[in-house]
Parts: sequence; structure tokens; C-alpha cells
Amino acid sequence: MPHPWFDKHRALLDEALAAIATRTHWLPFAESPRAYGEMALDEGLKAFEAYRDAQFYLDQPALIGRCGSEVSPYGLPLNVSYPRCSPTGLIAAAKAAMLPWVRAGSETRVGVCLEILARLNARSAEMAYALMHTTGESLLFAFLTGGPQAQSRGLEALAWAYREMAKIPPQSEWQRNESQRLEKRFLVAPLGLSLIIGSATQPTWNAYPALFASLACGNPVIVKPHPTAILPLALTVATARQTLKEAGFSPDLVSLLVADPDDAAVVREVAVHPEIRLIDYAGAPDFGRWLVDHAHQARLFVETGGVNCVLVDSTYDYGALLKNLVLSLCLNSGQLRTTPRVIFVSREGVPTPDGLVSDAQFGRDLAFALGKFLEEPARAVEVLGAIQSPATVARLQATRDLAEVAADILRDSEKIIHPQWPAARVHTPLLFHAQADQQSLYMEERFGPIAVVVSTAHTAESLALAETTMREQGALNFLVHTTRSHVEQLAEEVALRAGVALSFNLTGTTLINQPAGFADFHASGANPAASCGMIDAAFVANRFYFAQVQRHFLPPSSIDWVVD
Amino acid sequence: MPHPWFDKHRALLDEALAAIATRTHWLPFAESPRAYGEMALDEGLKAFEAYRDAQFYLDQPALIGRCGSEVSPYGLPLNVSYPRCSPTGLIAAAKAAMLPWVRAGSETRVGVCLEILARLNARSAEMAYALMHTTGESLLFAFLTGGPQAQSRGLEALAWAYREMAKIPPQSEWQRNESQRLEKRFLVAPLGLSLIIGSATQPTWNAYPALFASLACGNPVIVKPHPTAILPLALTVATARQTLKEAGFSPDLVSLLVADPDDAAVVREVAVHPEIRLIDYAGAPDFGRWLVDHAHQARLFVETGGVNCVLVDSTYDYGALLKNLVLSLCLNSGQLRTTPRVIFVSREGVPTPDGLVSDAQFGRDLAFALGKFLEEPARAVEVLGAIQSPATVARLQATRDLAEVAADILRDSEKIIHPQWPAARVHTPLLFHAQADQQSLYMEERFGPIAVVVSTAHTAESLALAETTMREQGALNFLVHTTRSHVEQLAEEVALRAGVALSFNLTGTTLINQPAGFADFHASGANPAASCGMIDAAFVANRFYFAQVQRHFLPPSSIDWVVD
Repeated sequence: MPHPWFDKHRALLDEALAAIATRTHWLPFAESPRAYGEMALDEGLKAFEAYRDAQFYLDQPALIGRCGSEVSPYGLPLNVSYPRCSPTGLIAAAKAAMLPWVRAGSETRVGVCLEILARLNARSAEMAYALMHTTGESLLFAFLTGGPQAQSRGLEALAWAYREMAKIPPQSEWQRNESQRLEKRFLVAPLGLSLIIGSATQPTWNAYPALFASLACGNPVIVKPHPTAILPLALTVATARQTLKEAGFSPDLVSLLVADPDDAAVVREVAVHPEIRLIDYAGAPDFGRWLVDHAHQARLFVETGGVNCVLVDSTYDYGALLKNLVLSLCLNSGQLRTTPRVIFVSREGVPTPDGLVSDAQFGRDLAFALGKFLEEPARAVEVLGAIQSPATVARLQATRDLAEVAADILRDSEKIIHPQWPAARVHTPLLFHAQADQQSLYMEERFGPIAVVVSTAHTAESLALAETTMREQGALNFLVHTTRSHVEQLAEEVALRAGVALSFNLTGTTLINQPAGFADFHASGANPAASCGMIDAAFVANRFYFAQVQRHFLPPSSIDWVVD
Repeated sequence: MPHPWFDKHRALLDEALAAIATRTHWLPFAESPRAYGEMALDEGLKAFEAYRDAQFYLDQPALIGRCGSEVSPYGLPLNVSYPRCSPTGLIAAAKAAMLPWVRAGSETRVGVCLEILARLNARSAEMAYALMHTTGESLLFAFLTGGPQAQSRGLEALAWAYREMAKIPPQSEWQRNESQRLEKRFLVAPLGLSLIIGSATQPTWNAYPALFASLACGNPVIVKPHPTAILPLALTVATARQTLKEAGFSPDLVSLLVADPDDAAVVREVAVHPEIRLIDYAGAPDFGRWLVDHAHQARLFVETGGVNCVLVDSTYDYGALLKNLVLSLCLNSGQLRTTPRVIFVSREGVPTPDGLVSDAQFGRDLAFALGKFLEEPARAVEVLGAIQSPATVARLQATRDLAEVAADILRDSEKIIHPQWPAARVHTPLLFHAQADQQSLYMEERFGPIAVVVSTAHTAESLALAETTMREQGALNFLVHTTRSHVEQLAEEVALRAGVALSFNLTGTTLINQPAGFADFHASGANPAASCGMIDAAFVANRFYFAQVQRHFLPPSSIDWVVD
């Protein structure tokens, strides 16, 4: 008998199972804050304020102190302190908690996970503030992506996990002949302990698929947030622990590992611990490479950066193209792994309904459209948010200095004052123009509000350069504007060889950097941007195996064991 | 429209899909040579003889010479020479062949793969001789495991691949609102090139799941056989190439890489080539570790050794237990990764229906039963086969010398003369007796006809030692003889923590080292014996991703691209 929570959430699970199979539009969780009550955001703010200047309550074992020094990108010191626990203590507690969770069976585990999701959903407003003041996202986007959309990704992973686990019957009767008749039993068994290394810019959106896939498949999870974005995952862990406890399981199945200021050393130690068998990481490529080189005892699900390319060949609607691109470049100040980084335009020009636009003109038009969008700071900051890390501001400055010497700056980055948060780190995107042979200016990820228009000899060269860039540097997506079917064909081949999701002629508010839950695959795993597909069967099936027990079916006394 | 071969084999595929879901007994290919015609074995022998003292025909690109120096473990020099091709040439040819294979779609690919399997099945008899004279298996077991059972494993992998690929529709209509209506197309896309590094003892049985899973998912495959067992995989590659060509695809989708005598250097070079994205390897642990340490560009499916444990606690039928164990120890002279290596018995003795048997008595009884089985050489060699590698004979000798000094030899290994093949390397199993504290004598894989009985203080110590051994050294299976339900429970927990398949009280001809196709999972991937489960969803889903293309569904002119 599965836990009653499985039945409680069964209808939602069934819808999710249908959605991953049909890949149509489906929103499991309301995306407007109003849907959560007129006062939802106000109450969320109150809850958030209550965490500030306080000790975050989390009843974890192996306590060795407290730590935490988050400062909001909007200028607000959070002053939240979290329990610091010994990593080996958390590992031991997680191991000890595992067996009853495994024996409870997939349906109970999925039911408990669905209940955790439901409770996280109810906390979306306070989560939005926690995210805003750690990642720098605007409140609206923090709510949207870090709340309902992150939960939706968790549900998507749960649906895949459930589907894969449900494949094998709990038992079978196997009979070859009179004397060879066996009862075989099968049980979903976890690979071991799962470590999630949180990202600084999208902590919940990145972590939830891993969290729910690992947990549903029976693996205890240790969540190690980025030291600058602890609160959103601390809230998540607290919710999960409370729910697990209520369901009669050990809360140590999900725990929070913080180690500020020794974070870097502790995470490297834990990542190679023999009991850690799964590691999910989203973040900068250098640590991703370190994991690949060192954490051989674990299966890795690593998503790092890449250079997403845009190819502008020709268009049905030039104005719509520019507006769509501007939104994509501004969204969350380019601090998404899905943000376009390079825009290839041919020196032969871009045919548009209003005539041919030269590559130089295209650069000027894009810069102008960007300026138009940014001219109202109150509107701009809703899309830009703030810059999460001072390192990104430094990268922006360094790139600006480089572009000033080696290329043409189309639109310089400028610091703008946030109407509500004067101390916020808000910088508009830097847009510059390079030539095809200046590969060091664009064949490298420059994470943040930085984009480059690259002039090529012709669209064939654009295609070739886009392919090389994405194959070698990694990429999640490829946006192509074209009205010509042979360019479409070639672009499809490039996308297939580079392992990127391809979009044609996006306009309106369909942004290349907003993958649709339950419909789009966020990563392919076929280029350096990610080591795994997301979210797909491999993403979940790598986290468990079918444990098997067999015995003779007949009562032992009647076994005919004649050898020949 | 899929290829007509998909329809031709559709019924078999449907049965295979049902079998992987129900896990009951199913034999897709007849296991008796007679089922292939009265003269099948005679014709197989003729075909095998025709390969000897000749150049093996294989029309591959990038030819740079010929090589091959296989000598049968039965004493027969094969004198077959194979085309030696440049690895980079084979890689380039495989890459060039990929796109049409991908675009053909999963059903066509699966149809062509099923046809390859059918043709391999028709060649089972000649394959049996090729296997016998490279691996040392007896003709009967070579036929059984390397023919129908290997093909069955290929089919099992194909069924999993088909099921996983069929999950996602070729296209969907995604609509959020009036202006956001997109057509999304999905295509199964391969990860890249697949390298299969063949084993010396079970080349077809080990390679077929990988070969068919990779190929069905769109990945071109380069097959690198062990230098001592080329012929079985050369026959396989030749069959695949011919079939692909007939279906209108490039035969370079499957190619043979031989590099004798530079084999070790060439395989290390190819294994780290950036275009090689999947590597399947079954063989000795040292090279498995080398792959894990170096081939970071590829997903690894590595199956190496382990120390499968047996625990004898108590029994319903002592004679049946001994006979079953003797067969398992003798099967293929212990040259299977599934062979039991260590048998734990408590010094408290084994309760049997005929009274308590002491640990020392158990050792003597097992040795006696082994001797009884081996006393008729003609019968014995049918099960033992010959020793594949002189290195195994050397290991046998070294272990014998060690056991003579440090332990008690229960039954010494002896060289026996094969009635038909006087020059064959046939050695009976070495069985010795060690104590629980002599861990260096049993906590290490000694591949070949070597087994050790270990005396422990009690069954609880046996369980603990078995768990440590299997967790640390890896293992595929755990055989427990017990009549006591609490021992069963504890054994289930050990098996779960160690990631091994558990069998209770096997008797008759149900051998622990003969996993049943479509019912048993051969490996869990949860301990060092294998890096992946076999055969399961992850085994196939890691080989492809869903490539995605999206565009606005409405004609471009009607797109409403209003930003807000």
C-alpha cells in the first residue's frame, strides 16, 4: 500500500505523465502571484523578513557551528545564519535513513515527493523574495522561474522517474521446465547518496529536477547551496525534512550542507567521498571540469556554460526579430545558461520585407532597439534584475575594455539606479561588434550581460562558425532567423551535429532562453554545455537500478535437483 | 515509412517488448543446434575451416595492412588475417555515414538491426566454432552463450532502445496563447561514435547489447576485438556491414578495428579521441580503471571483475547444494564474470536434513563432489572448456603456490587431456580453504578456475565479510543457501547495500552464473563490478538524446509579436 499522499496527488502525476509524452503546453502550477491569494506577496515578504537577522531553524545532526554571510545583489545584508554540520555526519545520517525509504517503494516515495512539491508551491512567495535577494532576479522573475517553474521542473523529473521505475513488475514467475521454476522479485534500488551542488543564479530551478529525481529513486540527498544563495535551498530542505518526518521517514534523507567560508575546500572533499554516487552541478565550467577529473566514484550530471549562437540570415519581420532578441539579451542580465551570446550576420546583409539591411546597420539597429527598451529604468529593471556576482561586473568591465580596443562597441554597458534599491548592482548589457576572424572575442562564454554581433562573409560561414563554437564551447540552444528553406536545412544539420535545440524565427515573447517545461528538452548532453540530457529518461534512470532476488518457486521439499 | 525489415520483424520485437516488461521465461532464438538443421554444426565447421589460413574479407576504408595471430586454446593456430585500417580513417568514415542513418528514424534503424540479428542467428553454428577456437569454451557452450544467448541479449537491448526512443512523439503543437503557438519536432539523435572494446572470453555475449543499443540509437560503432578473439566479432561486423549496405546505408556505420601487435597502444589512442562519445568495455579491471581515469569525453559502460560470494548457512538439500555449486565452479573453467569466487561457511556448521556439517567437512564434501564430477574427462571438458589465456594458467599456478603455504588445498588443480584436442589448455578448478582473517586470500578477484571456502565465526560474520568483499571488490551476484528467514532478511539487506543480484537455495541446473535473458539484470552498476546496469533503461537512454526544432506554427505574416 503506497502512502495516502500518492493517491492525494495521483491526478497531478497522471497529468504530468501525459504531458511528458505529448510535449504540449501544460502548467502544473499557477504562474501569477495573484493566483496564490491577494496578499500572497505581502505575506511572502513578511516571511522573508522573519528569516533576516536570525538563525535559520534546521534540526540536522552532526552540528559543528553556524555560518552564512549572504548579501543581496540589491544591497541588503541578509544576516541569516545556518547550522553548519559535519559532512561525514550528514553522510552517515543519510546512509542510515536509506533502507526504510527504499523498502517503502516507488509509489510512496513519489507520493511524499509530490507532497513536498505542493508545500514548496504554497511557499512560492517567500521563495521569490529569498531568490530575489540572493540571485538578483527581479521579484517577478524570481517568483516565476524559481517558484512555479522550478516546481514544474521538479514534477517533470518526478514523472520521468515514476515512469521509468514503474516499468518492471514487483515480481515474476519464471519457468523453464519442471525443475526450473523461480520466483523473481524486483525492487527499485538507489545508486547511493546524491550530492546537489547549487547554482548562484537559479538555485531552485537548477536543483529541483535532481532533488526530486534522486529522492524518488531512493537516494538520500545532500544539498550544498552556493554560499551566496543559501536561503532558497535552505527553505527547500526545511520543507522536505518536515514533510519526510510527517510521513514517518527520517528527515536526514534530505540535508543542507553549508561550510562558508571553507565552502570550496569542503565541497571538493565531499564530492570525492566514496559514499557519494550521484553529483548534480550547475555552474561555472572550471568546477565542472574539476568534477569530471576527480569525482570518478560518482555519476555526474553537470551543466556548465556554453556559447549559445544566433544566426540572422533573413527575416519576415525585422522589427519583431529585434524586439525578441533585445528581450532575450536583457532577461536576467544574461545570467542564464540559455542566454544568446553571439549573433552572426553576413556582410552580404539581411534581406527583410523592407529591403536589405547591412551587417553594420543590423548592429546599429539592435543597439538602438536595446536602448529603446532600456530607456525606462522602472521597466528595464523588471527584466534585467540585478547582477548576482561582483565577478560578473568585473567580467563586464574587462570585456568592455577589450572590445574598446579590439572591436566596435555598439552599445556600452551603463550602471543604472534601481528605483527601489539604490545600492543594487544593475548594469545594462554590453553589445559590441566583431569580425569572424576575431575568434577570441566570441568563441568563449562571457557569462553576464554581454553579447557580440559577428560579421561573416556569408551565411555559410555563419553556419560553420556557429557549429564550431557550439561543438567546442558547448551550447544549449541555437536561434536562426531565416526565410530560406535551404538555410533551414543546413541549420538543422548544424544543430544535430552540435547537439543544440534549434528555434526558427522567434518573435513576440517566445524567448529562446525560456524553455517550456514538459515540452522542451533543456540540454542534450551531447556537447560540453551539459553532461546529460534534461529532463529525459537517462536523467532519472541513471539514479537507480532494479535489485533482484530469486528463489525456487516450489516448496523446497519438492525441488527436483537432478543435475542431468 | 520505416524500412520493410521493421515490419518483417515486428512480431519478434513485440514479443521482446512484452518480455522485458514481464520478466518471465522467453527464448527468442532456439538454443539447440539441431533446431538449425541436422547438418548445421557440420556446415558451421566447414565455414569455420574456410576462414582458417586465409584473409578475412572485409571491405573497409583506410586500409593500411593486415594482421591477426589468433591461436585456439585447443591448440589450433587459426592463421586468419584481418584488414588493419587507420583508426582516424574509420572514425571519419563512421562520422560521414551518420546523418542518413539518424534521419532514417528509429523504426528503420531497429528494423535493420533486427535483420542483422536474424542473419547472425542463421550463422550461429559457424560462430560457435569461431568462439570455441578463440575463447576456449566447449562447442556446446560456445554455441549456446555466444550464439542464441548473445543474440537474445542484442534483442533485449534493442527492445529497451525501441521503448525508450518511442516515448516522445515526432512532433507536437505547443500553444500558450494566440501569439505563442509553436510547432515542435523531435528526433532521436545519437550521442556520437560508439567504441566497443571486446572481451577475450565472451566476445559476442558481451558486445551485442552495446552494439545493438548504440546502432539502434543512431550511433556508428567501431568494434575493437580482443587480439586473441577477433574472428567472432569480425563475423559479426561483416554481417552487419552487408546488411546495412543492402538496406541502402553506409556499411561504415559498423567497422572492425584490429591493430595486432600494437593493440594496446592503438586502443588507448582511440579511447580518448574526441569523436568517441560512448565506450563499452568488458574485461580486466586495470584497463577499466584506465578508461575511467582518461576517457572523460565519453560515457563509459564498463564491466570488469568482481568477487561473487556464496554464503552457506543451512540447507534443505545438502547434496543438491553441492552439485549445483560444482557445476557453477566448473562452468567455462570459472572464466565468467558471474562465477562464484568465495564460499563462506561458519565454524558453527551447516544444518542439513541429515545433521550438522562442520565447515571443514563442507570443504571436503565440496572437493569430493567436484572430484566426482571431474572423474569422467569427456563429460568434464564439455563444461570446463579450455583456458582462454596462458595468463589464467599462470594465475592458477601462483594461487596454488600461495594456498599451499598459507591455506589448505581442498582439491588441487590438475591438467587433464582433452579427448579430442590433446594440446588444449584444460585445468580443473583449484579449491582451497582459508580463514576469515586471511582477507588477502579471498578479497580479490582471481579470474579463472579458482575458488576458496572461507571459514567464519558465524553466519553474521559471513554476511558482513560478503558485504565488504562485494562492495569493495565489486560483484554481480550473491548466492545464499539458508532455511532461516532472518538470514534471508539480512542477506537481502546485504545484497541491496552491495548492489548485487541475490539468489536463494539454487539447485538443479539453475546456475548462479547463467543469468536468464529478458528476466535477470546482469549487472546493477552500483558496485565496482560494472559502471552501468545491464540491460536496463539507462543502458540505452545514455546513448541518445531528443533533438528538437521549433518554429511558430502560424504563417509568419500572421504572427502577432507584441512585446507586452
